[in-house]
Amino acid sequence: MSTPLKPSRIKKTGMPPGSLIYVGDAEVKPVRITIIRYNDNHFEETVLTSSDNLQAWISNDYNVWINIDGVHDVKQIEQIGHVFELDPLSLEDILNTQTRPKYDEYDDYIFCIIKDLYVENGGLMAEQLSFVMKERLLITFQEEEGDVFDGVRNRLRTGATKIRTRGSDYLMYALLDAIVDNYFVICEWFDKSIDELEERLYLVTGKSELAEIMDNKNEFNNLKRVMLPGREVVYAFYKSENSLIKRKTKLFIRDLMDHVVHIVETLDQSWDKVNGLIHIYLSGTNQTMNNIMKTLTIISTVFMCLSLIAGIYGMNFKHMPELEWRYGYFIVLGLMFGLAAVLLYFFRRKNWL
Amino acid sequence: MSTPLKPSRIKKTGMPPGSLIYVGDAEVKPVRITIIRYNDNHFEETVLTSSDNLQAWISNDYNVWINIDGVHDVKQIEQIGHVFELDPLSLEDILNTQTRPKYDEYDDYIFCIIKDLYVENGGLMAEQLSFVMKERLLITFQEEEGDVFDGVRNRLRTGATKIRTRGSDYLMYALLDAIVDNYFVICEWFDKSIDELEERLYLVTGKSELAEIMDNKNEFNNLKRVMLPGREVVYAFYKSENSLIKRKTKLFIRDLMDHVVHIVETLDQSWDKVNGLIHIYLSGTNQTMNNIMKTLTIISTVFMCLSLIAGIYGMNFKHMPELEWRYGYFIVLGLMFGLAAVLLYFFRRKNWL
Amino acid sequence: MSTPLKPSRIKKTGMPPGSLIYVGDAEVKPVRITIIRYNDNHFEETVLTSSDNLQAWISNDYNVWINIDGVHDVKQIEQIGHVFELDPLSLEDILNTQTRPKYDEYDDYIFCIIKDLYVENGGLMAEQLSFVMKERLLITFQEEEGDVFDGVRNRLRTGATKIRTRGSDYLMYALLDAIVDNYFVICEWFDKSIDELEERLYLVTGKSELAEIMDNKNEFNNLKRVMLPGREVVYAFYKSENSLIKRKTKLFIRDLMDHVVHIVETLDQSWDKVNGLIHIYLSGTNQTMNNIMKTLTIISTVFMCLSLIAGIYGMNFKHMPELEWRYGYFIVLGLMFGLAAVLLYFFRRKNWL
Amino acid sequence: MSTPLKPSRIKKTGMPPGSLIYVGDAEVKPVRITIIRYNDNHFEETVLTSSDNLQAWISNDYNVWINIDGVHDVKQIEQIGHVFELDPLSLEDILNTQTRPKYDEYDDYIFCIIKDLYVENGGLMAEQLSFVMKERLLITFQEEEGDVFDGVRNRLRTGATKIRTRGSDYLMYALLDAIVDNYFVICEWFDKSIDELEERLYLVTGKSELAEIMDNKNEFNNLKRVMLPGREVVYAFYKSENSLIKRKTKLFIRDLMDHVVHIVETLDQSWDKVNGLIHIYLSGTNQTMNNIMKTLTIISTVFMCLSLIAGIYGMNFKHMPELEWRYGYFIVLGLMFGLAAVLLYFFRRKNWL
Amino acid sequence: MSTPLKPSRIKKTGMPPGSLIYVGDAEVKPVRITIIRYNDNHFEETVLTSSDNLQAWISNDYNVWINIDGVHDVKQIEQIGHVFELDPLSLEDILNTQTRPKYDEYDDYIFCIIKDLYVENGGLMAEQLSFVMKERLLITFQEEEGDVFDGVRNRLRTGATKIRTRGSDYLMYALLDAIVDNYFVICEWFDKSIDELEERLYLVTGKSELAEIMDNKNEFNNLKRVMLPGREVVYAFYKSENSLIKRKTKLFIRDLMDHVVHIVETLDQSWDKVNGLIHIYLSGTNQTMNNIMKTLTIISTVFMCLSLIAGIYGMNFKHMPELEWRYGYFIVLGLMFGLAAVLLYFFRRKNWL
Repeated sequence: MSTPLKPSRIKKTGMPPGSLIYVGDAEVKPVRITIIRYNDNHFEETVLTSSDNLQAWISNDYNVWINIDGVHDVKQIEQIGHVFELDPLSLEDILNTQTRPKYDEYDDYIFCIIKDLYVENGGLMAEQLSFVMKERLLITFQEEEGDVFDGVRNRLRTGATKIRTRGSDYLMYALLDAIVDNYFVICEWFDKSIDELEERLYLVTGKSELAEIMDNKNEFNNLKRVMLPGREVVYAFYKSENSLIKRKTKLFIRDLMDHVVHIVETLDQSWDKVNGLIHIYLSGTNQTMNNIMKTLTIISTVFMCLSLIAGIYGMNFKHMPELEWRYGYFIVLGLMFGLAAVLLYFFRRKNWL
Repeated sequence: MSTPLKPSRIKKTGMPPGSLIYVGDAEVKPVRITIIRYNDNHFEETVLTSSDNLQAWISNDYNVWINIDGVHDVKQIEQIGHVFELDPLSLEDILNTQTRPKYDEYDDYIFCIIKDLYVENGGLMAEQLSFVMKERLLITFQEEEGDVFDGVRNRLRTGATKIRTRGSDYLMYALLDAIVDNYFVICEWFDKSIDELEERLYLVTGKSELAEIMDNKNEFNNLKRVMLPGREVVYAFYKSENSLIKRKTKLFIRDLMDHVVHIVETLDQSWDKVNGLIHIYLSGTNQTMNNIMKTLTIISTVFMCLSLIAGIYGMNFKHMPELEWRYGYFIVLGLMFGLAAVLLYFFRRKNWL
Repeated sequence: MSTPLKPSRIKKTGMPPGSLIYVGDAEVKPVRITIIRYNDNHFEETVLTSSDNLQAWISNDYNVWINIDGVHDVKQIEQIGHVFELDPLSLEDILNTQTRPKYDEYDDYIFCIIKDLYVENGGLMAEQLSFVMKERLLITFQEEEGDVFDGVRNRLRTGATKIRTRGSDYLMYALLDAIVDNYFVICEWFDKSIDELEERLYLVTGKSELAEIMDNKNEFNNLKRVMLPGREVVYAFYKSENSLIKRKTKLFIRDLMDHVVHIVETLDQSWDKVNGLIHIYLSGTNQTMNNIMKTLTIISTVFMCLSLIAGIYGMNFKHMPELEWRYGYFIVLGLMFGLAAVLLYFFRRKNWL
Repeated sequence: MSTPLKPSRIKKTGMPPGSLIYVGDAEVKPVRITIIRYNDNHFEETVLTSSDNLQAWISNDYNVWINIDGVHDVKQIEQIGHVFELDPLSLEDILNTQTRPKYDEYDDYIFCIIKDLYVENGGLMAEQLSFVMKERLLITFQEEEGDVFDGVRNRLRTGATKIRTRGSDYLMYALLDAIVDNYFVICEWFDKSIDELEERLYLVTGKSELAEIMDNKNEFNNLKRVMLPGREVVYAFYKSENSLIKRKTKLFIRDLMDHVVHIVETLDQSWDKVNGLIHIYLSGTNQTMNNIMKTLTIISTVFMCLSLIAGIYGMNFKHMPELEWRYGYFIVLGLMFGLAAVLLYFFRRKNWL
Repeated sequence: MSTPLKPSRIKKTGMPPGSLIYVGDAEVKPVRITIIRYNDNHFEETVLTSSDNLQAWISNDYNVWINIDGVHDVKQIEQIGHVFELDPLSLEDILNTQTRPKYDEYDDYIFCIIKDLYVENGGLMAEQLSFVMKERLLITFQEEEGDVFDGVRNRLRTGATKIRTRGSDYLMYALLDAIVDNYFVICEWFDKSIDELEERLYLVTGKSELAEIMDNKNEFNNLKRVMLPGREVVYAFYKSENSLIKRKTKLFIRDLMDHVVHIVETLDQSWDKVNGLIHIYLSGTNQTMNNIMKTLTIISTVFMCLSLIAGIYGMNFKHMPELEWRYGYFIVLGLMFGLAAVLLYFFRRKNWL
């Protein structure tokens, strides 16, 4: 299972390097291995549940894509590593679902790790995807059965866009491209949630809104922590002079680079927005204060004014002609009402009400 | 049709790379192809509505400039790509009106994308312009019929400034120069709108002004997202060692570089201004608060003072000489008026009124 | 003894360079020297309390790891320096527990200093660890007996993970790895303490909370001052072309590099959080102000309103019918209570109460 | 005439590059050409008003400095350009008084543009200065007759500091040095005006002060926009490997570099100061608010207290002994005065008054 | 005499470069020249008051250190420059006490300028120190007799730490080391003064505290303006490939580099602290405001409540039983006191008092 996107905690602290221990949430579903073999005019897809006899599927006639769903079964992963002669350090990274996105080149294979992001229950989730690329062979490791690869799988099935005519380097590019395209979706989702919060801040500025701003900041940082190293991975892939990557594929990777740079720019812009929220919040509390003060001033003015009148006619002077009037009391009451009305009208005209 | 300038959304997510799909708003107007052929002493201009037989216009005797208005007709663009042997990746970028400005060099042509900006209905609009430059041939793709190229077209017609004596590299430079010149106009327009907002903020600081500040920040970011990659394009054009660019033209491109750097500096300055707005806004709400508090203090002081007097003469002491006076009541009323006047005069002198 | 983590003060100011003076808190415990000799199928561990005859333990048949607990005994350290031909500048750095983490290469040995961090009584403590690496020999200097090396020591004892089959370069890597792993623990500890403070700030915003924010900022800076140079050390170790470091070990150091970069990213994120605290604090005081003002407004409104009524019936008009009523007084008292209740209900509905 | 320092507006937008059009304020004064010819033991100075026959003054025996005051006469500048074989792009830059400071090298001359700053009527003014340097020849273009070059002219006249024994590269250095020295004066003037504003902000914080802060920020940005490219010019001059610049002169240019770096540091410091102003301003409005609130509190306390006393003796209890006292009224009045005095004294001791 | 540390003002503006003019405060004390000659087993120290015959002291048998106290006597400095063939530009820098720290290499000597800092009357003072290093010769220029060199002088006298066995490069290193060590003292002094101000800000936040914060910011900038170029000097010294600097000395300079980097980190941390002060200040004024408002609210509540009671018993109803009670008045007075006590107790429990 993939994990919610949060600052990762190394659970392995103190373990020797190269020790194969699954670092992730415990998992019960069995590992699922999908093998796709294809060339210009051939396509076959097989699903296995055990890594035994995997080498039998390798053949010089086909490009082979082995996709492993689930990395919690240390034993199976170890066996796969043994079959394809993977370095223990690679295996360790595959098993540790908290590994930072990376791009490494070994003697006879290219290894890279990248994170796929998706939204679940309103929260960001990250799934770690690992790639091992050899001549005519690509092995991918997913934390769980996902759908980010489905588009590419379909193109392989239908043979669209000549994908079958190209090698494992192009396949790896196509999968990375699918992941990066997905980043755009995530960026938009995040951007939209900021916009909604901003709208809300113009109306309410309570403590929960402040907490939400801080949450957004944190989430943004998590996002950045996944996407920025993703850029490094693509860049290293682009700059690589490894003979496994054909010159023709390079053109496509350059295109992918452009997309990743685009994402980073989008992130920068979102960052500005997230930081602007606190200003809106603070202005909101300022406005609230102003409104409270206005209310207080209006109330004080009206009551003090009326009280003064009452106070005047409560004075004990011998000679106060109004006190003797037949309707003095009612006139004064009327005067008070009238004055209150005038004052309220005045404040309304000053837009305080 | 060109699109309002906002964070672009990739509509193609999940599509295979190199697939030719028009990403932009649907369009019904037919594509319009303008062919200009010129040399030192010749100039002809033809308008077509179909891309058939385009190759017939190519000739070694002339520089040829083919301008395509409208990129929504995938079929025609594909045909043009086929005629001039353009890479599918280039065609894809031309059709996707959300492509990030870029500069790529292919085996036998230079490809670049840049955005033209203009103001429509008070909002910034961006139009994507694509350039394909070969020896003696320049193909430009516009989203819609525009006028940013008109100046250059006129110079070609009149043969001014020796433009006809130079090749397609100079023509491409001249067109980029026209676009960059236009950036200055946009920067000024933006700067002026900030200045106006700033003026307004000294007078009013309501919620709509805050929203406007945030909008300006966003618009600025959009501006930057178009102009900064534009700089990269010009820089790559300048630094290129491609033989298609003559040494003589380089001097002009260096000049263009200076302009672009100038624009970036102007942007930086605007950024400072935009960020300053929030300070003016916050100070404005602070001032408002101060004024409300002053009003409250003045009102409280006056009424409390008069009420105290009324209260004193409302006391029930047996021996209060003033109460017996013939005109005591009127004297006290007069005293109250006088005191109120004195207090108001005092506050006015303290500049609180 | 190790020292609390704070901006270090150079106690040696004015001393000539290369002078061997212990800079740290005075210490009485004797120095303790642990010698571990191992190879593929051998492991022995010896504890000495004097550095005499150390050279006798060196042998070409074994990898030797000499660990010195306590660097306050200048004499012994000097003797060790003499035996293993260490440069006086190295010795000076070892003795000065305020040395900045560093990585130096001398003619025949690699020298590096790094800080181990741990939490004691709720405060961060730093212990300086120095490494001298020669062919088949690693000498480590600790300020006091610690446990950060225990994991590695156990692996040596049990011979797990082939550590015994590798040289002193791998041993040094393994120890650095243990220290860096520990950094993750510290980062988490720090992050958690920020989170707790943030929670608290939503409730209380007194002066002591402000002081705590500033303390956290300082502590963060101290953390950064130790960890960032640590990154440089690991990077220099990775980039080194010294023949003492085997190519195979390089792969492991590259992995360590990834961890260190991960830590730096975590630090950046914490930095954003620490800076956000002051905003929460300021918003908190603003909210407090708003609440006080609301209280004042409610109280003023209620009392002014009731006082006005009392004032009205305190007027001395001859003809005030209510005054003659048998239960006028009680009716008015009731009216007052009712009005107060209505007002309080009204404010509660406006969420001011 | 030179122009006030503000964000420059390109008036030429849409014009073809290389077109010679004067971009500046219209001008009626005739162009004034000063020719200085000198060598170790010779000095002559001639003033012309036309650029005809300029080439007659060139001679291998002398270093020649041609200074042109006024660049509005396109015809004359064009003629000068023709005589000395200047590139049209250079001429265009000379005529456009909004050109960004630049340093270009052409085949047989060095071309650079820099701005001279001076204060006029309390505002910053910028004058554009253009340099064309050839072997034994320096041509300078000023917008109007100025005095920044007078110091160098005098040294040439008197033959001080061996300036006559050196070539046109040294002369160009000497003139740039004079301009950069002048930058220091401007920086000081600006710094002083910030200091004065800061002083003022401790006393008054009205809207006009806020506007002034924003003006200062803008002016600072303008300053930076002129001085930073000036640094680039000097740096390019220093780094140049052009044979026109003698090795001996390089030592002097290195010195000039130091000055320019010094200026940039001074600017950075001013920037911090300018940014600090808004904090002082905001604190000022906060303090004002505090003072208003204190006033309100004092007034409320005093009047409410006295009113309470009056209220108490306005109660209608049958048995209130004080009411019967002969001097009860006067005692209570005295009590009121005394209480007011005590309260005011109390507030004064709390430093609220 | 050395000068207070403030943004330096160039007094020489308009003077030709290379002109030898003392830029500093006028000085009357005579120049004092100390000559130290030493080798492994020899040490002699001579004091002169004139620079005549200086060359007589140079000898191949000794390392010679010539220290000049006072640089106001242009004549003597000029003579020294003549004797040791110094470049006029070096001499100019020595005389100008406002020169930015620099490191230059001439054909046969290394020249560097650095600032020594010390505290006098609570203010930072800067003294300019210039070094001229040749083979076996070091000339140092001080503004006035100082003591920063005393430590090194003593080591030379006693022959400690083998300093006598090394050349002029080591001597220069040792002196720079003494200066940099002194920077630590200054940093600590500054840090302590910030801490003290911070402590104070938690108690008082008046206008003078705000001014003090701004002063600290300025002082910090001054500090940075001296120390950062100092780092460049040390770095250039370290990176230099000049044959005057022996390989052995390089190890020591690397150590010095570490110290300087340490200082820069300390500065960064102080910067964070200085910037934090304004936040503490603003929070302080906010707290003050909150306290004032609390006071106002408490006073209002108590008095309004009591006044209401008085108002009620001031009503003129015919039938108010309490008015007839024998001790009604006293009961009500008691009630008032009781109520006031209860309210105050309530506010104290809410921590408002």
